[in-house]
Amino acid sequence: MGVNNTSRCDLAIEAHEMLAAGSSGDFSIDGVSVVQEEVSQFIKVTRVAVDNDNGARQLGKPIGSYITIEMPNRFYGRQGIYEDVCKRCAEELKTLTENKLSDADDTVLVAGLGNRRITADALGPKVVGSLMITRHLKRYIPDEIDEGVRPVCAIAPGVLGTTGMETEEIIRSLTEEVKPKLVIVIDALCSGNMDRINTTIQITDTGITPGGGVGNKRKTINSDTLGVPVIAIGVPTVVDAATIAVAGLDAVSVNDTGDNAYEESYVRSVFEERFGNMIVAPKDVDSVITDIASVIANGINISLHEGITLSDIDRYV
Amino acid sequence: MGVNNTSRCDLAIEAHEMLAAGSSGDFSIDGVSVVQEEVSQFIKVTRVAVDNDNGARQLGKPIGSYITIEMPNRFYGRQGIYEDVCKRCAEELKTLTENKLSDADDTVLVAGLGNRRITADALGPKVVGSLMITRHLKRYIPDEIDEGVRPVCAIAPGVLGTTGMETEEIIRSLTEEVKPKLVIVIDALCSGNMDRINTTIQITDTGITPGGGVGNKRKTINSDTLGVPVIAIGVPTVVDAATIAVAGLDAVSVNDTGDNAYEESYVRSVFEERFGNMIVAPKDVDSVITDIASVIANGINISLHEGITLSDIDRYV
Amino acid sequence: MGVNNTSRCDLAIEAHEMLAAGSSGDFSIDGVSVVQEEVSQFIKVTRVAVDNDNGARQLGKPIGSYITIEMPNRFYGRQGIYEDVCKRCAEELKTLTENKLSDADDTVLVAGLGNRRITADALGPKVVGSLMITRHLKRYIPDEIDEGVRPVCAIAPGVLGTTGMETEEIIRSLTEEVKPKLVIVIDALCSGNMDRINTTIQITDTGITPGGGVGNKRKTINSDTLGVPVIAIGVPTVVDAATIAVAGLDAVSVNDTGDNAYEESYVRSVFEERFGNMIVAPKDVDSVITDIASVIANGINISLHEGITLSDIDRYV
Amino acid sequence: MGVNNTSRCDLAIEAHEMLAAGSSGDFSIDGVSVVQEEVSQFIKVTRVAVDNDNGARQLGKPIGSYITIEMPNRFYGRQGIYEDVCKRCAEELKTLTENKLSDADDTVLVAGLGNRRITADALGPKVVGSLMITRHLKRYIPDEIDEGVRPVCAIAPGVLGTTGMETEEIIRSLTEEVKPKLVIVIDALCSGNMDRINTTIQITDTGITPGGGVGNKRKTINSDTLGVPVIAIGVPTVVDAATIAVAGLDAVSVNDTGDNAYEESYVRSVFEERFGNMIVAPKDVDSVITDIASVIANGINISLHEGITLSDIDRYV
Repeated sequence: MGVNNTSRCDLAIEAHEMLAAGSSGDFSIDGVSVVQEEVSQFIKVTRVAVDNDNGARQLGKPIGSYITIEMPNRFYGRQGIYEDVCKRCAEELKTLTENKLSDADDTVLVAGLGNRRITADALGPKVVGSLMITRHLKRYIPDEIDEGVRPVCAIAPGVLGTTGMETEEIIRSLTEEVKPKLVIVIDALCSGNMDRINTTIQITDTGITPGGGVGNKRKTINSDTLGVPVIAIGVPTVVDAATIAVAGLDAVSVNDTGDNAYEESYVRSVFEERFGNMIVAPKDVDSVITDIASVIANGINISLHEGITLSDIDRYV
Repeated sequence: MGVNNTSRCDLAIEAHEMLAAGSSGDFSIDGVSVVQEEVSQFIKVTRVAVDNDNGARQLGKPIGSYITIEMPNRFYGRQGIYEDVCKRCAEELKTLTENKLSDADDTVLVAGLGNRRITADALGPKVVGSLMITRHLKRYIPDEIDEGVRPVCAIAPGVLGTTGMETEEIIRSLTEEVKPKLVIVIDALCSGNMDRINTTIQITDTGITPGGGVGNKRKTINSDTLGVPVIAIGVPTVVDAATIAVAGLDAVSVNDTGDNAYEESYVRSVFEERFGNMIVAPKDVDSVITDIASVIANGINISLHEGITLSDIDRYV
Repeated sequence: MGVNNTSRCDLAIEAHEMLAAGSSGDFSIDGVSVVQEEVSQFIKVTRVAVDNDNGARQLGKPIGSYITIEMPNRFYGRQGIYEDVCKRCAEELKTLTENKLSDADDTVLVAGLGNRRITADALGPKVVGSLMITRHLKRYIPDEIDEGVRPVCAIAPGVLGTTGMETEEIIRSLTEEVKPKLVIVIDALCSGNMDRINTTIQITDTGITPGGGVGNKRKTINSDTLGVPVIAIGVPTVVDAATIAVAGLDAVSVNDTGDNAYEESYVRSVFEERFGNMIVAPKDVDSVITDIASVIANGINISLHEGITLSDIDRYV
Repeated sequence: MGVNNTSRCDLAIEAHEMLAAGSSGDFSIDGVSVVQEEVSQFIKVTRVAVDNDNGARQLGKPIGSYITIEMPNRFYGRQGIYEDVCKRCAEELKTLTENKLSDADDTVLVAGLGNRRITADALGPKVVGSLMITRHLKRYIPDEIDEGVRPVCAIAPGVLGTTGMETEEIIRSLTEEVKPKLVIVIDALCSGNMDRINTTIQITDTGITPGGGVGNKRKTINSDTLGVPVIAIGVPTVVDAATIAVAGLDAVSVNDTGDNAYEESYVRSVFEERFGNMIVAPKDVDSVITDIASVIANGINISLHEGITLSDIDRYV
């Protein structure tokens, strides 16, 4: 699971909420703009833009765009909402990709990060498994595919512990080989807020840092390290055990006092030591992750290929 | 996941620990005996016997035997410890089965409870998948199997939500059909203590109550309801989110005061409502559950068949 | 995998084709009627009725109805055809169930036969995993479910080698316990014709005989053995290696001569001995079986519950 | 699934057998030597060396070494044979690797080819999942690992249809990045002989050509294309349907006549067209492939790390 920056909280929207919660009266940061849109009863989009160094420093996030789609945490029996989220995901992706892809023949490389053997971490590999893979078709049988279909290739490289290679090393060497105009990476995130689990998709043009490494030298995957534009799509799928413990403190209002920060960091350190490898996830995590992977894959498929709709996709997958 | 009785805490050893923690000085309950044995540096066995109604009432557990095997939570690279736990599991099972099986031809029915699609709940089905199944061999090709091999049959019936039938209904109707001399049920348990996750095997002759039902009418599986002796094997594989939150309170000593019980029940009720479907488990839950299932299956295989050793088992599985 | 009768060829439609192929001129059997319907360009239904003992003897099939739905072997990118097959499957099922179920509260027990660990044999368990399971809801929370929803329960019992119990023993004892008005069994079949693999659904009211047993005492599951009406749904998912070899002989017209029967039985015996455990299936058998299981589950769901349509189903599954 | 050269038959030993079968009297080819060793009742090793262009042309295989290990097709209940095959696999690998790796710190990159979603093709990805991955440990925590442990990294890149990238492109770009001294690739092969299915491991220093591509431009993975030595390990796991059909012809001695070649190619063309996507494999292909993957992974683990034995491996996996 990855983190978008060096802090514990992976989502820009969460970082902003925390700062706002700690302030009184109207809250604004120079260099950070936040726009919310209620797309429907079930879907909300928030666009956080970090425009200058002050904004980046205060929010603890690199300069760039952070789009958050909030959605229900289950789609069972709600095909309509599911399709709306797919389409919305495609539209938001397009706002970030369109200035990076000038031509229908520009290649895109998609990387699904995470460990496919750990359900809550398998989001990335699952997305890759539902993508329209077309680069080889464009190359070998161009006449048999629809116009508007763009060359897309993809890999689910595995994690450092299973490959022995930094994810960044793998993506970078494939980027040098394939020379895509855009790299999209997908990863499961860790959240500091249980309500965000499987309900929030963050799309950003600032890259991502895969987590879980041995040692501290986790290498960020972004346009600086790859040399081409990078869009990162992340979904919080787990919280760590310490986060739950802190939520317990909040529930009994223990930390309404000024000791808040002290208590929280103390609880975190205790839990990290004793229960560092425990994660919290819903019982039916397998089917929930499958559904969200499908939303993201459809969002990517629709946004990358001209004229492709939800009902066209299964001809290619 | 099941519970061995009506309280939140599934393990007799935990129930006893809690009572002892709440008392001062020497602690003993009339009708409850507790014997501990350090089998090795890595394995500890505790035998709790509930002998009379007073003991049952105080401990909140039916009259009977409760054997707890404590072991490491990982066996990676420790084949020796793994084999020791298998053998110890077989020996402890034998102390409970030997007076129930008088003849090498007495049939045993094993039921692996739980939902195979939820990793932490799949312990029972996984055990069934590694058992020596021999009833049909004894019946149709008796000459081709080793002497001492007992007729064993097994089922992983699924859970109420996937079958529409109470687990008790299924096991009872198969018991009437097959007429075993002993029924063994295996289920993943919920624990109130994170340290017990995947480190504790409880073996009891008092039966089990499968959990997770719709409505409140969960039917216990025991010698009363089935009409034949029942041995239940349970392993805590998850804790609920509320347990973690309470552990957080403990960590900051909030409930050192007399308010303890109040705080805990309040936190539990808040969490149940908001995060009722969240569970806490180790990241590598899949391989951990596979290993423990293998320990229990081997324990059952060795204990039920005369003269069968660890190295014989794979001829039959 | 099961067989519907004692001969090698599981499908009534195949048995009829073979007899017809061996005859000259107009072909008809007293006691057997065959009606074909081209439902669409992609779907064909054939209804074979065996009405008397002569028909049964000649066709080698018990008296009863045999409905065959022929469909494409892939649904990728053909959502419309997929939905048409689901609906057709529901309609044909209804013609066999409607006189057996008099009341919306009559319970149905569904049994998915086969070994879930062998992909081509996992059809039955997969169907069970996609059914609307409602018996417990009708019992415990009747007010929360739609009118017209019937009590349905289901089990995927496993095969003789993994349970030690005859499938018939398990289904019969559950039938005695649950007292359904109808039992539906689903099983993967073996076919003698490669073109039928994953393209043919047979629905019959004559029951089924699970295959693959040790010894010869495979017990048929039908209204005689269970005491309630039984509908069997079967799909050929594999052919054995010998069938391919015989197809090879056909391809080179070796058995255009009168030696046909001799050659075929000889080839079969040679292959059975050397390659008895080899099966032939499509490379992408996993996704094909998943799709067909979905068709059959939807067919059952729609046919059993009044007023339920394809889009309602996922609220219950 | 891959092929080691351009002909239908992937194994050098098979190519040699066919030529020998077609000749009379003593058979030998200039430039090809064949040495057989009966290692035990259950294990046979054949070493084919192609030494010059004449040998390569006649055998249809590049110049190099081809080691074939023949073993039983099941290890159930035969732990001893299983361990013997693991060790033998390690020893034979060592004969090919030892002159390529001069130093204990020379890095090895292992690539598991094939599609993990198709059981019979998942051999490569399964091997990778059981390897000791150590490159990152050597880099970040060198003090915590045993002496003699070599830096090993690995990837299961997927197939052209799921990545849009030639396997050769992926392996080559990772080779340029990681700069290993040796690349080992593992792939499932197609065989022309049913008796070889899951009984034969071929180890060669001549590389491999992944199969199943769109178009004809399958790129070979060997020391020429990668720029470092390549060892390929292949196991025939399936035969195509046409091979079975031809075996049927053989069984009835149809092609004892001179028409042999004609009949065979005709049967093949008919089958390719009608049943091109059908494969033949054992029913229990899943567990068989798992076992063989484990043999190969252990063989690689033992051969690459100094002083590592079977019982050490699980500390690292």
